[in-house]
Amino acid sequence: MSVSGNILINGKWLTGRGNNFKGNSPVTGEQSAEDFSCADNEQLENAVDAASQAFTSYSQNSDAQKAFFLRTIAEQLESIRPQIVARATWETALPEMRINGELGRTIGQLNMFAQLLDKGDWKRPVIDEAQPNRQPLPKPDLRLTQVPLGPVVVFSASNFPLAFSVAGGDTASALAAGCPVIVKTHSAHPGTSELVAGAIANAIKKCDLPAGVFAMLHGSGRIIGSALVKHPQIKAVGFTGSVAGGRALYDIAVSRPEPIPFFGELGSTNPVFLLPESLESNAEQIAESFLASLMMGVGQFCTSPGMLIAVKGPALNRLLASLAEKAPALAAGTMLTAGICDSYNKHCAERDAIGSLKIVAKGLNANSSANQAQVALYSIDANDYLEQLALEEEVFGPSTLVIGCDDQAQLIDVANSMKGHLTAAIFASEQDQQLAVQLLPTLQQRIGRVLFDAYGTGVELSSAMSHGGPYPSSSAGQSTSVGTRAIERFTRPLCYQNTPDALLPVELKNANPNGIMRLVNDRWSDQAID
Amino acid sequence: MSVSGNILINGKWLTGRGNNFKGNSPVTGEQSAEDFSCADNEQLENAVDAASQAFTSYSQNSDAQKAFFLRTIAEQLESIRPQIVARATWETALPEMRINGELGRTIGQLNMFAQLLDKGDWKRPVIDEAQPNRQPLPKPDLRLTQVPLGPVVVFSASNFPLAFSVAGGDTASALAAGCPVIVKTHSAHPGTSELVAGAIANAIKKCDLPAGVFAMLHGSGRIIGSALVKHPQIKAVGFTGSVAGGRALYDIAVSRPEPIPFFGELGSTNPVFLLPESLESNAEQIAESFLASLMMGVGQFCTSPGMLIAVKGPALNRLLASLAEKAPALAAGTMLTAGICDSYNKHCAERDAIGSLKIVAKGLNANSSANQAQVALYSIDANDYLEQLALEEEVFGPSTLVIGCDDQAQLIDVANSMKGHLTAAIFASEQDQQLAVQLLPTLQQRIGRVLFDAYGTGVELSSAMSHGGPYPSSSAGQSTSVGTRAIERFTRPLCYQNTPDALLPVELKNANPNGIMRLVNDRWSDQAID
Repeated sequence: MSVSGNILINGKWLTGRGNNFKGNSPVTGEQSAEDFSCADNEQLENAVDAASQAFTSYSQNSDAQKAFFLRTIAEQLESIRPQIVARATWETALPEMRINGELGRTIGQLNMFAQLLDKGDWKRPVIDEAQPNRQPLPKPDLRLTQVPLGPVVVFSASNFPLAFSVAGGDTASALAAGCPVIVKTHSAHPGTSELVAGAIANAIKKCDLPAGVFAMLHGSGRIIGSALVKHPQIKAVGFTGSVAGGRALYDIAVSRPEPIPFFGELGSTNPVFLLPESLESNAEQIAESFLASLMMGVGQFCTSPGMLIAVKGPALNRLLASLAEKAPALAAGTMLTAGICDSYNKHCAERDAIGSLKIVAKGLNANSSANQAQVALYSIDANDYLEQLALEEEVFGPSTLVIGCDDQAQLIDVANSMKGHLTAAIFASEQDQQLAVQLLPTLQQRIGRVLFDAYGTGVELSSAMSHGGPYPSSSAGQSTSVGTRAIERFTRPLCYQNTPDALLPVELKNANPNGIMRLVNDRWSDQAID
Repeated sequence: MSVSGNILINGKWLTGRGNNFKGNSPVTGEQSAEDFSCADNEQLENAVDAASQAFTSYSQNSDAQKAFFLRTIAEQLESIRPQIVARATWETALPEMRINGELGRTIGQLNMFAQLLDKGDWKRPVIDEAQPNRQPLPKPDLRLTQVPLGPVVVFSASNFPLAFSVAGGDTASALAAGCPVIVKTHSAHPGTSELVAGAIANAIKKCDLPAGVFAMLHGSGRIIGSALVKHPQIKAVGFTGSVAGGRALYDIAVSRPEPIPFFGELGSTNPVFLLPESLESNAEQIAESFLASLMMGVGQFCTSPGMLIAVKGPALNRLLASLAEKAPALAAGTMLTAGICDSYNKHCAERDAIGSLKIVAKGLNANSSANQAQVALYSIDANDYLEQLALEEEVFGPSTLVIGCDDQAQLIDVANSMKGHLTAAIFASEQDQQLAVQLLPTLQQRIGRVLFDAYGTGVELSSAMSHGGPYPSSSAGQSTSVGTRAIERFTRPLCYQNTPDALLPVELKNANPNGIMRLVNDRWSDQAID
């Protein structure tokens, strides 16, 4: 599996006719041997045309055919695991164990959607049978299912070069839904992207699917990314990245003559609420577990805990002392790109200069030539914080703000001041439950996932997962980008009225040959209809 | 139940401090005795503040409490049926039987959502239990449900003064979801709006709910409507109306610092495909049933059939002859407003002047002083149509375009040229099924509801209904505005991780006291968890 630097359009590896760029190691600055080539507009048109044509047949594939395709991609990825791991570690500075785990997760996502397709109930079939004798008017036969939207553009994220990238959750869920995918790669891991795209291309051949089902384009977000989102044949977008970048593309998606859904996972600071009794009992253990969560991926997880909120007093002082003791020994870590590292340093420098912020602790010094980030922990009085709500914005990297409240009422005030976040954690002992009950309604308005005595880092693959939340944590807070429900983003409802059984999709046929759970005349049933 | 002309804010009937306007009868031009007063910005702020405050408690109400509220609104509406019918017929020119039926439907919608709340599974609860011994990492306990978004603005439609207005489907589904509602009324039926709002206000008192759960404001779309959509405390919008008006408000909703979902049901022409064998067998019957569908509500149904597509030949000629024979006897009918009538006449005059369009027939002459619309049927050759795709746009009123295709392939071409529509009808005999199979994939990409041997007019209240479709038929084609699933528009997912049972909402508790159907460890179950 060598890396060519090419782009993949309609099953062909082509030299992009746009600019060239090099991959690089963020640790050493060493550049890739290969030149990676960006698509030009004509190549983009070709990719979209191929996707549109492929949609006509791919959207009619059975769930079994799509499940086989997803499993074949998973196998193809597994078969080149050593190459992917080697390239991804070099391109991202993430350790081998992490990349190996992330590849396992990526394969797991593909298999999870394959299993969902096996079960067949993901289209939420509903049948209301006709009542020809109803008065004053007969009731028609109505049957509801979901259909795929059309070709989807997926923007790769920098921070999960496999699980939220070329064959990541957006791609897996869109392909599972029946939508062709065009990936706009992230420039931070082009070689990894090509290897993964190669695995998908091989799977397409093995499954004898139209080549246009998948394309991979290198190119800048402003040029190729914007043009893809604008293209009339594109019907939805999946994105993981910054608020600024995501909002710019969202604005394009909703300004089209035909607006399209933009599923953007943007920024989140993931507040952690330390309730009094729990903090009193566990201040030191919380300091330890919190730092472990913060250090995951050099603080570059979208669920990284960026705020700790507690009532001031001896227990919080113990936590702060424990952080001040432990943090100085924490190693600096290389960030994903030089640009991300620069941005982190700029944010920390800004925080260093804010008078109302105290530095709780900093980690070991960073080697800036290796694009390293130094851990930076700050504290602030809630009265000051509530005057500077811009501090709620995500600082991407290993930094956290501890907010000390006068009392429990102010802790609720801080929660009430918040915008949307992917997660919020509540550390609560049994004696804290009354305060937790007060806190939950405000979190219910602002948070995608509420955790007890745990941190948001580590997003389980599960039918019960939701990864999303009110803006700005997501541009589409009514959806999730992780878990089985992610497939629903790329579908819409279609109702069939008085339709001959022979013309109905399999999940709506009377015989229910796949034994799918359906809502039939408002009762759940996995049986056939007589 | 007298009509005051006031607006309703936080349970109080107030004189709006904006402009005044009169209601009127579109038949006679007679003006209402009352002055209706529009809200000013301060009153709007008060309504939104009250809704925000009410949300905190209302969102925590049980499904049983909300169901009781919806049923109480239904009872209150029933108790003033004569007043509503008298006022609505005078304000809209719609006949008494229709308004009586529409009030029944409106009451039916409220009861439908109450029944959905009784069942309790509308939040789609999912539980994945913890696996503390899983390797390499324990699996946490994850539980997924839906929570309401926050205060919702509902824009009333002109064409269904009850079912898509003050206590219509948007309001019913938002209240069912747990969201307070602020209605921006339609100026075409302000007295009806006040009567219905009075019924809701009475129900709020009887149910001892916070008065801010519902408000009704008169005002212009450009001023009060825009300001409501812009307001940061508003979290979603329901709208039924024109593409132009809806798109203007959509643009505001998505341009906010925090964009919000805009559920707009906009324009649809609802193509009817007459397949050859069916047309051959039934040309005359189709002409008759088609005209009956077209004439419903003077062509002012959102699902009114605005296009007939068939292959040219003797059978189509029989249909055209039958239309030409029957249509001239069709009575002109008064439209909802003078503005709608003017717009209809303008569109018809444009079509009269297009050289490639032939006039098949016109109905009886209209009395313009009574704002009457004359039925207008046109035909065009598909080759000409495909050069003038602007003809696809909805003409609101009793007008239809018959498109004659050279052959079956061109009929598919016409389908492929289409944008989104709420419905498409296919008239097909058994011998037409092969062509229907070719047609369905293209409709699957463009249509919200596909009907066989029936017209889209008449949107059943059903769990299997979908009323929506790709743009421009809806600005949110992944949702429906009719049927039980409409409730999902006003909710978003919330995941609970490792949460004490006592703090979980009832649908996620182990005991499952309401016996709700849930997905538990990826299996459907209505049982408790041990």
